[in-house]
Amino acid sequence: MSSFLHDDFLLGSKTARRLYHEIAAPLPIVDYHCHLDPRDLAADRRFGNLAQLWVTGDPYKHRAMRIAGVPERLITGDALEREKFDAWAATVPQTLGNPLHHWTALELKRYFAIDEPLTAGSAERIWTAANARLAAPGFSARGLLAQRNVACACTSDRLLDDLSAHDALAVAGGGLRVRPSLRADDVVAVEAADFAEWVGALGRATNSVIADYDAFRAAVARRLDVFAAAGCRLSDHGLDAFRYVTVSDAEAATLFARRLAGETLTAGEVIRLRCGLLRFLGVEYARRGWIMQVHLGAQRRTSSRLRRVAGPAGGYAGIGAACDIPSLVGWLDDLEGAGALPRTILYPLNPVDFAPLAVLSGSFVREGGPGHVQLGPAWWFNDHAAGMRAQLEAIANYGVLSVFIGMTTDSRSLLSMVRHEYFRRVCCDWVGAESESGALPADPAELAALVRAVCHDNAHRALAL
Amino acid sequence: MSSFLHDDFLLGSKTARRLYHEIAAPLPIVDYHCHLDPRDLAADRRFGNLAQLWVTGDPYKHRAMRIAGVPERLITGDALEREKFDAWAATVPQTLGNPLHHWTALELKRYFAIDEPLTAGSAERIWTAANARLAAPGFSARGLLAQRNVACACTSDRLLDDLSAHDALAVAGGGLRVRPSLRADDVVAVEAADFAEWVGALGRATNSVIADYDAFRAAVARRLDVFAAAGCRLSDHGLDAFRYVTVSDAEAATLFARRLAGETLTAGEVIRLRCGLLRFLGVEYARRGWIMQVHLGAQRRTSSRLRRVAGPAGGYAGIGAACDIPSLVGWLDDLEGAGALPRTILYPLNPVDFAPLAVLSGSFVREGGPGHVQLGPAWWFNDHAAGMRAQLEAIANYGVLSVFIGMTTDSRSLLSMVRHEYFRRVCCDWVGAESESGALPADPAELAALVRAVCHDNAHRALAL
Amino acid sequence: MSSFLHDDFLLGSKTARRLYHEIAAPLPIVDYHCHLDPRDLAADRRFGNLAQLWVTGDPYKHRAMRIAGVPERLITGDALEREKFDAWAATVPQTLGNPLHHWTALELKRYFAIDEPLTAGSAERIWTAANARLAAPGFSARGLLAQRNVACACTSDRLLDDLSAHDALAVAGGGLRVRPSLRADDVVAVEAADFAEWVGALGRATNSVIADYDAFRAAVARRLDVFAAAGCRLSDHGLDAFRYVTVSDAEAATLFARRLAGETLTAGEVIRLRCGLLRFLGVEYARRGWIMQVHLGAQRRTSSRLRRVAGPAGGYAGIGAACDIPSLVGWLDDLEGAGALPRTILYPLNPVDFAPLAVLSGSFVREGGPGHVQLGPAWWFNDHAAGMRAQLEAIANYGVLSVFIGMTTDSRSLLSMVRHEYFRRVCCDWVGAESESGALPADPAELAALVRAVCHDNAHRALAL
Repeated sequence: MSSFLHDDFLLGSKTARRLYHEIAAPLPIVDYHCHLDPRDLAADRRFGNLAQLWVTGDPYKHRAMRIAGVPERLITGDALEREKFDAWAATVPQTLGNPLHHWTALELKRYFAIDEPLTAGSAERIWTAANARLAAPGFSARGLLAQRNVACACTSDRLLDDLSAHDALAVAGGGLRVRPSLRADDVVAVEAADFAEWVGALGRATNSVIADYDAFRAAVARRLDVFAAAGCRLSDHGLDAFRYVTVSDAEAATLFARRLAGETLTAGEVIRLRCGLLRFLGVEYARRGWIMQVHLGAQRRTSSRLRRVAGPAGGYAGIGAACDIPSLVGWLDDLEGAGALPRTILYPLNPVDFAPLAVLSGSFVREGGPGHVQLGPAWWFNDHAAGMRAQLEAIANYGVLSVFIGMTTDSRSLLSMVRHEYFRRVCCDWVGAESESGALPADPAELAALVRAVCHDNAHRALAL
Repeated sequence: MSSFLHDDFLLGSKTARRLYHEIAAPLPIVDYHCHLDPRDLAADRRFGNLAQLWVTGDPYKHRAMRIAGVPERLITGDALEREKFDAWAATVPQTLGNPLHHWTALELKRYFAIDEPLTAGSAERIWTAANARLAAPGFSARGLLAQRNVACACTSDRLLDDLSAHDALAVAGGGLRVRPSLRADDVVAVEAADFAEWVGALGRATNSVIADYDAFRAAVARRLDVFAAAGCRLSDHGLDAFRYVTVSDAEAATLFARRLAGETLTAGEVIRLRCGLLRFLGVEYARRGWIMQVHLGAQRRTSSRLRRVAGPAGGYAGIGAACDIPSLVGWLDDLEGAGALPRTILYPLNPVDFAPLAVLSGSFVREGGPGHVQLGPAWWFNDHAAGMRAQLEAIANYGVLSVFIGMTTDSRSLLSMVRHEYFRRVCCDWVGAESESGALPADPAELAALVRAVCHDNAHRALAL
Repeated sequence: MSSFLHDDFLLGSKTARRLYHEIAAPLPIVDYHCHLDPRDLAADRRFGNLAQLWVTGDPYKHRAMRIAGVPERLITGDALEREKFDAWAATVPQTLGNPLHHWTALELKRYFAIDEPLTAGSAERIWTAANARLAAPGFSARGLLAQRNVACACTSDRLLDDLSAHDALAVAGGGLRVRPSLRADDVVAVEAADFAEWVGALGRATNSVIADYDAFRAAVARRLDVFAAAGCRLSDHGLDAFRYVTVSDAEAATLFARRLAGETLTAGEVIRLRCGLLRFLGVEYARRGWIMQVHLGAQRRTSSRLRRVAGPAGGYAGIGAACDIPSLVGWLDDLEGAGALPRTILYPLNPVDFAPLAVLSGSFVREGGPGHVQLGPAWWFNDHAAGMRAQLEAIANYGVLSVFIGMTTDSRSLLSMVRHEYFRRVCCDWVGAESESGALPADPAELAALVRAVCHDNAHRALAL
């Protein structure tokens, strides 16, 4: 088994191997969109055992265990942490061919120097060996990031989240920069049962009385300023089945007033009010020089049973329909028309959208701002070698690869930073193969510059680090 | 030309060759979904010539001949069988690159030991040589299956079909197990002109008076029991442009009553009644431990002219729109909510659905039941090496490959069993390449277990053989 | 850098190299759909400098420059031609991996024998060297086509265009055949503000009074006859978000009358009138033995700002939704029902449509007419090596490759003919790789015939050259 994930894995050519080992591997990691908990980072949390760090909170692993038929008790139920770890260990060999199989081996190898495959048979040994290391200096929350040379991580924070952990990190973070970024779904969740309540909380957080649309927008803008002051440079929306229509401020104001008064809006009205808010927010992001991230096409409602058992983000979501292109285009055009189209990263979940969304990089542009609107890296279910390859090919063929902002993990796990290694290998493999076939120049400096741009420099520059 | 379809064709690595020849090739075939005629199998039918066995009833060949411009007289018209064979022979060289070109050569080679390519020039020789063999013992209907080591074949039978051929086969089949499976489209064809008539026939077949929805469901259930008693373990639906909404039993009962009374339902009502029935049927399948097969996305109405000439299944169908994911999810969720989600295999015809449907394996699961909902093998127009590869990659990346139920032919032709060879080569090639690149372990036992699971064991276990 | 675009680039096997150099490369080019200006060809236009020939009118380059953040002044603004050339030169190295990067190097190499990569640093040298050659005999409009061995080019002409340039070319063209083909969008642009005006111009052009639908159709038919007399063999429609319903002549006549009277039709009525006209036109094309080209799925409206700045075809368009298959099928079926389905080439812009549209080749067929309805070559944003490969695989797997009509440039640029070289390399690479893997026969004559058919013969035959 010595060949599994060997030093040159995924690197199919000499050029690829040189590019990876000499250029890509040593680059620091800029993880500009993740779901790490800033409080864990501020407290430099330590983990009692491998299950806490690695299994009990990871919906990817939960999902694979469920497909393998593992009882829910051993996944999210009341089983012991060790039992859950063992259930995962027994599942790993069945995931052959899935990225989880790679990540599992790679994470054990890179963080714990464990080369043995995790199986039911090796579970005891690996549990003991890994847990013994968790007390060592490099295994605190920040230590784990330092192990992988992470220079910057941008967490996902809700508009009303307390940002004091970020303030603490600004002082204590050392070489590691941790920045908040705004997950703005609450602002547009006008159909949520507790929306009015949330507006009340927003009022209290901003010392304002929110009696109308103008006051609402002013309060949101005040929180955006708080985020900006804490170092925020990116926002994020999850727009699952996105429809956009142009809605006037007057109409949005009326709909908002009715909603605030406790009325239930129709499905069409919900969309219209949300569109008004999305236009407002886009303009605000542009004013602050933020990057707007748009996650499109998740089918979050699947099994009602698993939603009850495992919560709204329990790993059982699906891929939804293809993006409604006229809607997306309409939104971006409205923002551009308002003179305020922020830099935008598009993350489609349905692979059919790779090409159409990569093409939009040529539709919405900014003088002096390369890659102003662009397809982001492979997201969620697409985050595997084939998905990364498909994405690189889409960007290269339908856009301009050298302005691509590159990989981010979008992960809740401190160990996921190995996915940057994964991405860099796929990227160097692609560049190397194209060069050796004569389709890219063989000039080492040119190839190195491309790899450096995509694996680090573009993200570094985008965040003005 | 000695290299065409040589012993190692499609096997690009040493590991792939070892896996195929040592592990995959000797495995018996479990063809869990096909359209072989059980009466032919019961009678152990013999064929007068190669045209009867191989050309006149094969819509795949008809389709290719039409694309090549062959007159319909030589396809489904009143030409002699020999003329039709000659027309096919002349077409074969034009199909270079199409799976038909492979299947043709492979079928002549494996069943008839004919290595010469079929062309206009070789037609006479091959006709004579093949026909001469048709009298030999291995060339009866069951003999042909035995030649390819078929252990089990599940035919497609309509709810009111006479299952006596299956009864006969249970006695006479020898090592070959032939099982009925239910093609249930008749049950939900509520828009069909002869639906009421079919309900009448159902009543006669079950000795019942079907005056209302309850009686209808009871009669259907009685026929399901007959199928179960005859060894049925799978059902099948062709849902071409599938829309699902939750419909109460009360509403379905009302719609059914109106339909039975001779009313024409609106398009929306047809969908609603069908959805009620699909929910009812799913529950019944689950109760009986059956596997529910769902074929999605065919565009069966294309050329009205060819429909008149060649009948409803004449080979001129198309690929329809992408699957409506919320509909599919809604149906499965309703069944799960009723505590009765059967094991489900999804067959999308539009390749855009590979990823979204593979992902659903993580959305609907069963404790102790690996791969409870899963993407099925490449179907119909996707049944070629590239389609199989795409499907394997989708399942590996978006699901769990080791629980994949593997290949089935979905074919009307006794000779199509060579497609299992085709699939096994593609599968071993994929596993071998991944292993040699370091992306899968090189452990021979682990790789062999994966190949065995996907090429035989999972299907064998699913049918409880 | 000697290896970039070397003699064997994109040719990954010995068989591929032999097929390309011996068979494909020497074949004349039949470019059956392009946007060259017939007046340039008739006048045998000369170009003052490389910017005029190559940069200022090329929306592909404009698009890449915009993605790279180049100011619009240097793209379509009032900058000097030399400044625009320099801006392009500085952009080229950033397009690594995009087909533009290949085309740029290939065009400089093949037409100007310039091997040096175009960069900011080499811009001055290349500008001087290339401009010096523009006065040589081979660099007039027709000279450039002759350089690449172009036997035939079919331009795109609007129904009311003056065809006298084509008349002149019929006399003066020498070995080069230039043919008009009809871009018929004007005829169905019933929602355009100036539609009534255009109908008036049509009346004047045909010496007829167009007072009703019959007169309109008669006048259109008269112009079709003029096109036919000038050598036209193909029509073309751009149907961006195509919906089709069967509309009677009577209804179309009524809608036409209302539109002509100055009424604004509803969106639904616009579609219905257009569908009536599309049915009428299809029948007319079939009567004349023309090939009907259908371009599907462009999203032409994206940035309103760029539309104002760069005009309606300024390079900022996008890819729209997947094709509505029932609509497309309905149209073709209606035409077949009228006994008048013309030979049809389908060009989808969204890659998700490759498979479904390739399959339709088996749905609509003509006795004696191989490939009557077929998927066309990779169009617009798909016109890169990966797109060509995807298209070849779709046609091979879902249709019949040997009847594929092959590459056309769809380009406004005289230098784009190198894309035929590009296509031929991709095609030979694919055929060679399949043959060496044992998936295609190794018979050199059979492979050569396939390559010849796809790279030249089928297009030559389709145009009855």
